Amino acid sequence: MTQLLLAKKHIPEIKKRLAEDVASLGLEDSYLAIVFLGENTSSETYVRMKRRFGENIGLSVKVFWQDRDDDQLIEEKVTELIESLNKDSSCVGVVIQLPLPPSLFQATNRLYSKIAIEKDVDGLGGALMGYASIGLIDFLPATPGAVLRLLSVYGFADFQWKKIAILWQSNLVGRPLAIEMMKRWWTILSFNEYSDQKEMKERCKKSDLIVSCTGKIHLVNDEFVRDDQTQVLVDVGYGHKDGKAVGDVYAESVMAKVLALTPVPWGVWPLTVAQLFINTIELQKKRLMLPQSLWIKRS
Amino acid sequence: MTQLLLAKKHIPEIKKRLAEDVASLGLEDSYLAIVFLGENTSSETYVRMKRRFGENIGLSVKVFWQDRDDDQLIEEKVTELIESLNKDSSCVGVVIQLPLPPSLFQATNRLYSKIAIEKDVDGLGGALMGYASIGLIDFLPATPGAVLRLLSVYGFADFQWKKIAILWQSNLVGRPLAIEMMKRWWTILSFNEYSDQKEMKERCKKSDLIVSCTGKIHLVNDEFVRDDQTQVLVDVGYGHKDGKAVGDVYAESVMAKVLALTPVPWGVWPLTVAQLFINTIELQKKRLMLPQSLWIKRS
Repeated sequence: MTQLLLAKKHIPEIKKRLAEDVASLGLEDSYLAIVFLGENTSSETYVRMKRRFGENIGLSVKVFWQDRDDDQLIEEKVTELIESLNKDSSCVGVVIQLPLPPSLFQATNRLYSKIAIEKDVDGLGGALMGYASIGLIDFLPATPGAVLRLLSVYGFADFQWKKIAILWQSNLVGRPLAIEMMKRWWTILSFNEYSDQKEMKERCKKSDLIVSCTGKIHLVNDEFVRDDQTQVLVDVGYGHKDGKAVGDVYAESVMAKVLALTPVPWGVWPLTVAQLFINTIELQKKRLMLPQSLWIKRS
Repeated sequence: MTQLLLAKKHIPEIKKRLAEDVASLGLEDSYLAIVFLGENTSSETYVRMKRRFGENIGLSVKVFWQDRDDDQLIEEKVTELIESLNKDSSCVGVVIQLPLPPSLFQATNRLYSKIAIEKDVDGLGGALMGYASIGLIDFLPATPGAVLRLLSVYGFADFQWKKIAILWQSNLVGRPLAIEMMKRWWTILSFNEYSDQKEMKERCKKSDLIVSCTGKIHLVNDEFVRDDQTQVLVDVGYGHKDGKAVGDVYAESVMAKVLALTPVPWGVWPLTVAQLFINTIELQKKRLMLPQSLWIKRS
């Protein structure tokens, strides 16, 4: 029978451990900063969820809501905000809520890279991912981190044949996940929307683990999997169709064929928020492992 | 007819341009530092070649040759040396000659990460590769940089079908090359020595570009390529057999079958030294694009 991998089930235990960490690291008066510049309803939902998660574990979440008039959202002003958060010793993490509004879209990675490395809890600023890629630290951005945590909970992070197919190559998921899996000596097949789609399906069928993060609703169907119940299929997609939450995977079509599957929305998704806080705590613990020349002087 | 891709042919032109850059950037009194800790004959040859290349373009290369008594090669001492080079404003680049001696082998990445980011001309310290992975700057470690430069010179860096097979996943070549090709939206097949070797051969046959950096002499033979002269085969290997320089590719076996091939040693290899100096110059030009919080204060 196909096993359902459910992040949701493991959240209470993770929260309990994080609450203990917040207390033992003395972070009760610290906060996680969310820089929220967009005018985006989904973003508002995510921000609310992050705030609630923080409350649950005893870590404040402060939202820095900037004037949304595009004319005023100049990069320089946002950079100044980030730099003041970098300097504030009470701030233990800085998150820029994505997507940014159109006027700042091109500046996304540049702004992320301005976050002090020890506070880049989303891991999207580049440097932390680079240090992870050479094995200096273990660190992953929130979403690929959530994927691996979930696989690990269910014993699939160190799979027998170690062949992974990753659909699409975004900065947020596909690319850091591929980097991590190379570190773990998996064979990597990394596809994008320009890849030969027929061959992609064939290759997915031959893989042990398939991770889809394309944002294309119901892209992955029974043409992507074998039917011998030996493959693990992870769905990172999240969208809506006919008022229902759906992902990249057309679950009905593959359900009986694979060994394990992450349903949407309770599969991967609740862990992505948790992973942000796990990263925050981990970076507090690992700060001293980061190259000294990069430390930000605490005020 | 199979085309031979020859780095050697393009070195004089690259040297000429770099010499102009050294002059226009006013680097005549600056130097590239090589930290040489090993007792390794090949390393001595490489160090000599780097020094000579530097002389050719008017940039001094200073070798910091540490006492090779293993007991004295403590990580702390090497870190101190790196930190003093970081602070020296005449020093425009720091290279740690690899491999390090056994006593420091485990510290390789940690030591590399201590190099000031703007001076990490080998790009092995992690942060630069991280910034490159999110598209903040264009940057590659010397060897994958050399591979792409060579492909670009011959018009193969933007190949028609964009499917690359990369053999092995080292920090030095395979991993950064895969990251770069994801950025360029290629389909990536990244193999290691634990991959199913039969499938690896089949997949290489179906790829447009094959880059081998395994260090296994003559691993890649006619079982890895089609015979329709449409594939490009890059050999990053470099070793010796029966007194002759040889690479990963068994050239005689594949020669007539591929569109283009890099012979050993004059294919990729001369460009790896050149790329180190190209990186040095590029980092001088791009310093201001790097996140400010990472700058090392110049003394």
